[in-house]
Amino acid sequence: MTDAPATTTEDTAEAFRPEARAPRGFADKRARDLRAERAILEAVSTVYERHGFEALDTGAFEYADALGKFLPDADRPNEGVFALQDDDEQWMALRYDLTAPLARFAAQNWETLAKPFRRYAYGPVWRNEKPGPGRFREFIQCDADTVGSARPEADAEIIAMAVAGLEAAGLPRGSAVLKINNRKLLNGLLTAAGVETQGQKLAVLRAVDKLDRLGVEGVRLLLGEGRLDDSGAFTKGAGLVGKATDAVLDFVQAGSGGRGETLAKLANVIGGSAEGDEGLNELSLIDAALKSLGVADDQAMFEPSIVRGLEYYTGAVFEAELLLSTLDEKGNKVSFGSIGGGGRYDDLVARFTGQQTPATGFSFGVSRLASALRAAGREPGGTARGPVVVIVFDQAHMGEYFSVASELRNAGIAAEVYLGTSGLRPQMKYADRRMAPAAIMLGGDEIAAGTVTIKDLDLGRQLASGVADNAAWKAERPGQQTIPRAELVAAVRRIIAGGETGQ
Amino acid sequence: MTDAPATTTEDTAEAFRPEARAPRGFADKRARDLRAERAILEAVSTVYERHGFEALDTGAFEYADALGKFLPDADRPNEGVFALQDDDEQWMALRYDLTAPLARFAAQNWETLAKPFRRYAYGPVWRNEKPGPGRFREFIQCDADTVGSARPEADAEIIAMAVAGLEAAGLPRGSAVLKINNRKLLNGLLTAAGVETQGQKLAVLRAVDKLDRLGVEGVRLLLGEGRLDDSGAFTKGAGLVGKATDAVLDFVQAGSGGRGETLAKLANVIGGSAEGDEGLNELSLIDAALKSLGVADDQAMFEPSIVRGLEYYTGAVFEAELLLSTLDEKGNKVSFGSIGGGGRYDDLVARFTGQQTPATGFSFGVSRLASALRAAGREPGGTARGPVVVIVFDQAHMGEYFSVASELRNAGIAAEVYLGTSGLRPQMKYADRRMAPAAIMLGGDEIAAGTVTIKDLDLGRQLASGVADNAAWKAERPGQQTIPRAELVAAVRRIIAGGETGQ
Repeated sequence: MTDAPATTTEDTAEAFRPEARAPRGFADKRARDLRAERAILEAVSTVYERHGFEALDTGAFEYADALGKFLPDADRPNEGVFALQDDDEQWMALRYDLTAPLARFAAQNWETLAKPFRRYAYGPVWRNEKPGPGRFREFIQCDADTVGSARPEADAEIIAMAVAGLEAAGLPRGSAVLKINNRKLLNGLLTAAGVETQGQKLAVLRAVDKLDRLGVEGVRLLLGEGRLDDSGAFTKGAGLVGKATDAVLDFVQAGSGGRGETLAKLANVIGGSAEGDEGLNELSLIDAALKSLGVADDQAMFEPSIVRGLEYYTGAVFEAELLLSTLDEKGNKVSFGSIGGGGRYDDLVARFTGQQTPATGFSFGVSRLASALRAAGREPGGTARGPVVVIVFDQAHMGEYFSVASELRNAGIAAEVYLGTSGLRPQMKYADRRMAPAAIMLGGDEIAAGTVTIKDLDLGRQLASGVADNAAWKAERPGQQTIPRAELVAAVRRIIAGGETGQ
Repeated sequence: MTDAPATTTEDTAEAFRPEARAPRGFADKRARDLRAERAILEAVSTVYERHGFEALDTGAFEYADALGKFLPDADRPNEGVFALQDDDEQWMALRYDLTAPLARFAAQNWETLAKPFRRYAYGPVWRNEKPGPGRFREFIQCDADTVGSARPEADAEIIAMAVAGLEAAGLPRGSAVLKINNRKLLNGLLTAAGVETQGQKLAVLRAVDKLDRLGVEGVRLLLGEGRLDDSGAFTKGAGLVGKATDAVLDFVQAGSGGRGETLAKLANVIGGSAEGDEGLNELSLIDAALKSLGVADDQAMFEPSIVRGLEYYTGAVFEAELLLSTLDEKGNKVSFGSIGGGGRYDDLVARFTGQQTPATGFSFGVSRLASALRAAGREPGGTARGPVVVIVFDQAHMGEYFSVASELRNAGIAAEVYLGTSGLRPQMKYADRRMAPAAIMLGGDEIAAGTVTIKDLDLGRQLASGVADNAAWKAERPGQQTIPRAELVAAVRRIIAGGETGQ
């Protein structure tokens, strides 16, 4: 509200009245979702900081040319992003992730940074895509990246942080797993099999990426001539022949078992190309570092069928996957899938500087992580507690009501005086809708007697929902007690503690 | 990085290389500023929640028509804001404050909200203004607002929260004050003096707003015929005559002393218009509520010369002012001025619904509050502590290094293994630049002996800066000790504790 641009209110009935609606694909987040989001960001940030990553926040905008896909001769500079032209004619776009701004920042400040540069960041990113149910155009990411280290140990550390982040956020061990692959393995295998063109390699990656959905035989078709789907549409295949197809299929199925076992299987499949050996060596070093960091086989595994961002990653790739199945709106089991991912992208800083700069990182999708936690039966950030509501019995005693609210706040208890104009019954309803644990009632009699009446609204909600039965229900005023004013804070604390344990 | 749009790296020397630079007016915030920002938001949010305000976060965009000044027939729909046209042709704009989105949200959800609706919000807002040194186009606000209560007690509560927020953020009592006014007082006084036109009233407000800068005589000229400034420019005055001018000047000077004293003075000056009496009555009720809430005269005062957003506020207005003077770059004392403000704006929701909806709120400028805290000698969020850095002596022992880092992290100590490729001396320099409290060194000898060598880098920095003198400096390896590995965590904790107390 500070220095807000002036607005003019039209008094006439003919005044223009805009419709009150949020733009398509943008959500209003209320307390429960924000509590979840903040608890996750706090937990994951703590993990990142404990690993020596420093906080960085870049602005919402980047120049469009710095965002990578928006080369000067692009026809539609705003495709996929929200872009606008600044008054000096330069195109700016809202960031679509936190990695592109990091690459820009690292390139801009490279000479003065302590290297390797380790930073974490969180905040909204924006995608100008078609919105739909559950598909938003603004969402929160939480990333950690290391720029300036080519060591596979840097990848291992990123993986270890992702594992620790999942657990710190509240996902019980065993409910999620980090899946790790290395782009160089498949590249090497394809080179050894005589596949040389980038187009054919990308077609193979696209086929492998469908293993989950189509199974081995579906992928075999896509690796070869192509596949006709149930709707009759034909997808052209990668055009591999014979042994190459078998090698790829052996490769993508090598991921069961512990990391050591998978490494051994992969060594048999890859078969001697320099790039494949390099990928294998990197995975071995990642495995060794993960062991030293205490990351077990059930927390992080090698999974050769993991693909991710086709033209983006240059080496190791990571994906965090929820292992719990969840139910859709119709009650059907659905696999939840990825709750974050990342990998090594050695080319991003080079776009600015021309010099290859090794980089690796991981990004959590915070809303997806919140959904995953709920699927695991955890409410991130805990359950809502409204404020204690002080009921306004009599305007003459407003001072008393404010004193009571202050007393509770000073004791660390959220409290408010009802500030509407309605009578007692709507006030009690208000307190209930605010999820107040208790309502405080002070009439002239109580004030004269130095007492205060407290109504336990948690108990009221339990009675209403059938959780509590018994004597309380039969009492004329269930959960209501009149006590000396000096005992107010202690009594409210008891009610709040009782509500938290469900008593 | 999740699902980032693909980027293509050009390998040729002729490839387009964008310049790495942040857009004009957008800042990259590093750890120190973020620590300050987060500490302030955490402290102020806690105050807001304790007063029963619930968190709300609306999206970055609003439809331009919902933002108030951007009516459909405006010539330049993007003046003052960052606006773009969505693919359905609707104009959207990034929010320029947190109040306009609240008004939209309240209008959109009015039927289903528990009322009065009390919400707090924080986040970036964007202004498409000319950037300059210290003038950004993106900054963080932190607001609390009550929608649906016309009671002056709702204003008092907002004021009490602003006072509590300043202290919770770390500003010592006495270093800032809330100044309160009510638009109705001056309106009433002007009506009583025969001033009827809105234009003349605004001219009076503009004149009053310059009291700080021009003094009483300057304002007297602006209230009358006009004023010629030192540069020879003439500002046309409000055109008041005789007694009206004196009344306004008496009014704006009534603010010294406690709230009760000011109320008494104002009662003498206002002189009987209905609107003036209404304003006076509102201030009396605000004073009474502030007393009950424990807000003293030195924390919140009535100041009739406070103006704020001319066409925006409809009743009470508030401004938080830092009382400490600060030094500019040249070492001159400068008054710091406002670190937040707000007031009652009863017309904003009505833009959508046509029905007047009383609302009041306050907004902290978070960067300004951080600067104010630094002016008061407090570093918000505390001083930077880097991670403990484990030095890589020998590639063969990477596993040991990762174990040491894990052990420290599990004890809650930030730690990292150096992951670059440089030798010992650059590694020590890296640790120093990261503000590491200690460096850990493990060679083959130490590993064989079950020991570890720790270098106290805090001590090193103190020695270098002359804070510590003496024996340590003369020692061959100051601050370096070799201890049993089992004592690692305890020894690092001692070093960190010593650094924090400056020992």
